[in-house]
Amino acid sequence: MAQQITPVEPQTVEELLDWWLELSEDDRQAEFVALPRQDAGTLFLALEAADRAFILESQTDQERRVWMRLLAPDDAADVIQQFDEDDQPGLLSLLDFRTRAQVEALLAYQSDVAGGKMSPRYIRVQPEMTTEQAVGYLRLQAESSHELMYYAYVLDKQDTLLGVISYRDLLLAPPAKTVSEIMARDVVSVPDDMDQEEVARVLRGRALLAVPVVNAEGQMRGIITVDDVVEVERAEATEDIQKLGGVEALDMPYFRTTRYSMFRKRGGWLAVLFVGQMLTITAMGFFEDELAAAVVLALFVPLIISSGGNAGSQASTLVIRAMALGEIALNDWWAVIKREIGFGLSLGAMLALLGFIRIFAWEGMFGSYGDNFVMLGITISISVTAVVLWGTLTGATLPFILRRTGFDPASASAPLVATIVDVTGLIIYLSVAKVTLLGGF
Amino acid sequence: MAQQITPVEPQTVEELLDWWLELSEDDRQAEFVALPRQDAGTLFLALEAADRAFILESQTDQERRVWMRLLAPDDAADVIQQFDEDDQPGLLSLLDFRTRAQVEALLAYQSDVAGGKMSPRYIRVQPEMTTEQAVGYLRLQAESSHELMYYAYVLDKQDTLLGVISYRDLLLAPPAKTVSEIMARDVVSVPDDMDQEEVARVLRGRALLAVPVVNAEGQMRGIITVDDVVEVERAEATEDIQKLGGVEALDMPYFRTTRYSMFRKRGGWLAVLFVGQMLTITAMGFFEDELAAAVVLALFVPLIISSGGNAGSQASTLVIRAMALGEIALNDWWAVIKREIGFGLSLGAMLALLGFIRIFAWEGMFGSYGDNFVMLGITISISVTAVVLWGTLTGATLPFILRRTGFDPASASAPLVATIVDVTGLIIYLSVAKVTLLGGF
Repeated sequence: MAQQITPVEPQTVEELLDWWLELSEDDRQAEFVALPRQDAGTLFLALEAADRAFILESQTDQERRVWMRLLAPDDAADVIQQFDEDDQPGLLSLLDFRTRAQVEALLAYQSDVAGGKMSPRYIRVQPEMTTEQAVGYLRLQAESSHELMYYAYVLDKQDTLLGVISYRDLLLAPPAKTVSEIMARDVVSVPDDMDQEEVARVLRGRALLAVPVVNAEGQMRGIITVDDVVEVERAEATEDIQKLGGVEALDMPYFRTTRYSMFRKRGGWLAVLFVGQMLTITAMGFFEDELAAAVVLALFVPLIISSGGNAGSQASTLVIRAMALGEIALNDWWAVIKREIGFGLSLGAMLALLGFIRIFAWEGMFGSYGDNFVMLGITISISVTAVVLWGTLTGATLPFILRRTGFDPASASAPLVATIVDVTGLIIYLSVAKVTLLGGF
Repeated sequence: MAQQITPVEPQTVEELLDWWLELSEDDRQAEFVALPRQDAGTLFLALEAADRAFILESQTDQERRVWMRLLAPDDAADVIQQFDEDDQPGLLSLLDFRTRAQVEALLAYQSDVAGGKMSPRYIRVQPEMTTEQAVGYLRLQAESSHELMYYAYVLDKQDTLLGVISYRDLLLAPPAKTVSEIMARDVVSVPDDMDQEEVARVLRGRALLAVPVVNAEGQMRGIITVDDVVEVERAEATEDIQKLGGVEALDMPYFRTTRYSMFRKRGGWLAVLFVGQMLTITAMGFFEDELAAAVVLALFVPLIISSGGNAGSQASTLVIRAMALGEIALNDWWAVIKREIGFGLSLGAMLALLGFIRIFAWEGMFGSYGDNFVMLGITISISVTAVVLWGTLTGATLPFILRRTGFDPASASAPLVATIVDVTGLIIYLSVAKVTLLGGF
């Protein structure tokens, strides 16, 4: 896998993106600069904010100006937000006067609410225009707009949103009618402080291509388009996946996350889990005499506790994802538990059988476990079944408890479930062993 | 959390969806039937294929006919695919003649390629029409089309795709020009056998609202719209999340997955992991004498191996997600490993310190570990650092190896990484102990 710099000259967006994605992080800045200007522009427009910022990082202000001016105001705002606060005024100053004012307005919002995601560029028409006038007016506005436009918004002089009209409606309407006669009055709009995930749901539920954003006074401030929904969904999934892996959400690409932030977001959970896992020392300590009497018991500890952790990780992952997709509601907790009792028992029994076979086989081949191997087999089988059942139920229940108490169910990560199950699994296993093998060794 | 049937009569799509998502699975079919007809229709159109199929399951053919006929052909095909093959002809027969033919054509494709995702209903115009004629023609076609339309496609008599024209272009063009004069000729189209994820990338990269699907002969067969992209991305994320949790992708909602299929998809991985984990018995067996001499060593086994597993799960999750988002390419493997060595060492050292403090504190308070507690502390600290480093590197490397060899990197699940790290972690820990504590107990 030697790194080589390929002298490609791709043409289409797809080719450029494929080529870009295969480039090593280290080469991307240099390769971007080496692209023909037109390809570079095509690629730059197809990339996301983090990649755009990364390219700009290595450039002079003069180069940056070219690329920043390619961007629509909402995209420019997203790029600027990738930089430290100290660097943001410098980037803002590269924009033309009108765009700069729009970007500044966007930067005043949190980046994850409607106001921070919207594009301030949209097509507005007046209610008293005829549709013919409106089409002529659109022709003028359309030339100065970079973004795709799907609807024209009908505003009064105070910017109050009165109605909406799609290009299609305008196209199909008789030319003499006025805009207010054919516009739809029951406009779906979202407040500027609505969370982006909620906005995504509105767009999806209504099958809209764009939704207007209004402030507390009912004035229209911008639009959010359907493309933004894809990005919001992707960011949500990333957050969930990282939490499920036992990491705090990074909010930044892997290589752009600073060492300190990465250490904190991983180390925090690792330390919590480590301290929780210390309970296993205490738990095993209670059985120190039994372990000393039969060291063979210790050999099976990792096998047994890990099967509980694995079963729990499966159950929690399935429940968390189903919750995120709306397949499972809080009210379904009992239905889920009923189902999971069945899976816990059947999966546990299957693994118990595998464990039993293993002990018999090794005893037959190597005489590993002495006279008591049947009782050992029984001990392991009972323990595995019980621990897998317990792990499955813990994994399935924890997301419900977290959600019910206001936490993110995705925090029920595989490592967290495993830690909880390890401690209880040890107690189950060694208690079973104490009963079945008491005096046996 | 008693289940109660609320006598709500919601109005908007959002209200209906919110209400639906909070319903328990058991109540959904009955509650749907109890809805006023108009609300039921609104809700049915807003649901996804799996939910639609679930509602239909409990209904008679006469009721099903009403709902099936609400659906566009591609949506109808998706719903029919949720049923067993035996039930599919019955559902098809409920559709009107024209739609049935279109749905049958869609069902001939795999559901995850362009041909299986496309809508066969789109607006076509002829190249020699004037734009004025085209607008009139559109007015006729628009009334019979259920889906949102953004573009009109210019086809010749043999259905060959010649060009595309947006509503906006048509609106802004002089009425006397012909369609062929103003249409865009460099149409982006996708072949009917292209994978849906690839189609999603084309739409996103080009910021298109819809893309035409053509067969091997260059004939246009349908369109894929931007809404489909959101669903594809969501399905992809679900698959990755389930794999990361150590489950085979379900491809169905939690409650709609049959018991057998659920058992197989969880049991398969659990059995593989269990058999792999059996190596821990062998590994610990090598150190049986040391464990017998110092049972205290056994007490720390779960703590040490789990810290390696947790660190590994974090690293693999971050790398897998970054790969899926295109942030990390195969070529970046060395840059990633360099970074992860730093994290492994620093995170390991932090946990080692915590472990050291714990041993000193317990020795001070309870005299738990006898004269050798300093050496025990050193043993645990060295082992934790080494095992965390090893876990981090395993978790970061495995996705690269899987991808390089053609497997899905998401298979490097938390449970798989933990299993690999458990076996090697034990060997590391007990080898360190053998050196540091040799003859010490």
